Amino acid sequence: MKRGAERGPYAKTADVRRKIVEACMETFAATGFQATTMAEVARRAGISHNGLLHHFPTKEDLLLAVIERRDSQIAATLAGAGAPDAEADPREILASSIRATAPEKWSVADLELDAVLSGEAAVAEHPAHAAIAERYEGIRHFYARLLGQLSDQGQLRTDGGDPDALATMFLALAEGLRQQWLFDKDGVDVAASMDLFFDLIVADEQS
Amino acid sequence: MKRGAERGPYAKTADVRRKIVEACMETFAATGFQATTMAEVARRAGISHNGLLHHFPTKEDLLLAVIERRDSQIAATLAGAGAPDAEADPREILASSIRATAPEKWSVADLELDAVLSGEAAVAEHPAHAAIAERYEGIRHFYARLLGQLSDQGQLRTDGGDPDALATMFLALAEGLRQQWLFDKDGVDVAASMDLFFDLIVADEQS
Repeated sequence: MKRGAERGPYAKTADVRRKIVEACMETFAATGFQATTMAEVARRAGISHNGLLHHFPTKEDLLLAVIERRDSQIAATLAGAGAPDAEADPREILASSIRATAPEKWSVADLELDAVLSGEAAVAEHPAHAAIAERYEGIRHFYARLLGQLSDQGQLRTDGGDPDALATMFLALAEGLRQQWLFDKDGVDVAASMDLFFDLIVADEQS
Repeated sequence: MKRGAERGPYAKTADVRRKIVEACMETFAATGFQATTMAEVARRAGISHNGLLHHFPTKEDLLLAVIERRDSQIAATLAGAGAPDAEADPREILASSIRATAPEKWSVADLELDAVLSGEAAVAEHPAHAAIAERYEGIRHFYARLLGQLSDQGQLRTDGGDPDALATMFLALAEGLRQQWLFDKDGVDVAASMDLFFDLIVADEQS
């Protein structure tokens, strides 16, 4: 698409929505969804309160837009690691997706946002509970497919558990390590721990 | 101490403070620290706003009392697993402390509280950031001592990493698994995954 073709009312709306979602991500990360007011988001986005309500009538609409945006960033990262299919080497894709969990690949503000929102959303009544449950489900499914392929190829250490349980552990470890990293950025080496777990699970490469 | 000796003004103060802290834990779990108002805590505790301020002048005071209470519950659980000393079997203590991570050992409300507060506190400016950092530090230290003893006894699988890194992984896995469990209580088996990790790290028992 030519640069000029992005102009016009639709591009402008998209720009404003993007600006609002970014302002909202900062506000949610700083004070959480529950304590965020629409007025604060409007102030940070530099638009009027009515302007904000035109694009996002409720705070729930904002929350879902923020989660959708983070989900697409996460999906892009996993897709960047490679799609699990018959052609690709699942060991390579798994190793590459693990490298993508390193907090240095993300902004601290994004990691704080994930921590604040998924923490809040752990309460069953939270409006983002279902969306975060779905995110976890999607990530587990991604890992489970790769681990299932490795299992079929005899590349998992035999005492290493089934692919679904291991997928849950990969996600738990990645989340738990990044959580600790936010409290101790020098002391916690996320990538090294993830690599170690990979080596515990996946058999040595046949030469 | 005789039961009667607990009566009197001091016991009464302790009772009121306990009631407030419990009301506060419910409120924090439901709406987070940031969105909680002192009025809401007073209402849930069934005391006047002034009565609340007498015991806890600010919301930060409440927050630290709640964290202190959870910390002492966690410390009691780890102590229940056994103290790492020359007499005790570190393998047994580690296995027992792992069993204590199972979410079934706790109330869902307490686990939701931990998730909400440690999520919020991941932001460096949050008033509980230092207290949660200290909690993580204490738990890692507990695991690292046990794993160090096992390493000295030649009971760690040689390719299993150093005790500090493994301690970080134990905590990450326990937190990450409980987090997923809060979203999928039937699909996530925290205890089984922790046991599997134990088996990956610790060498088979010599017979």
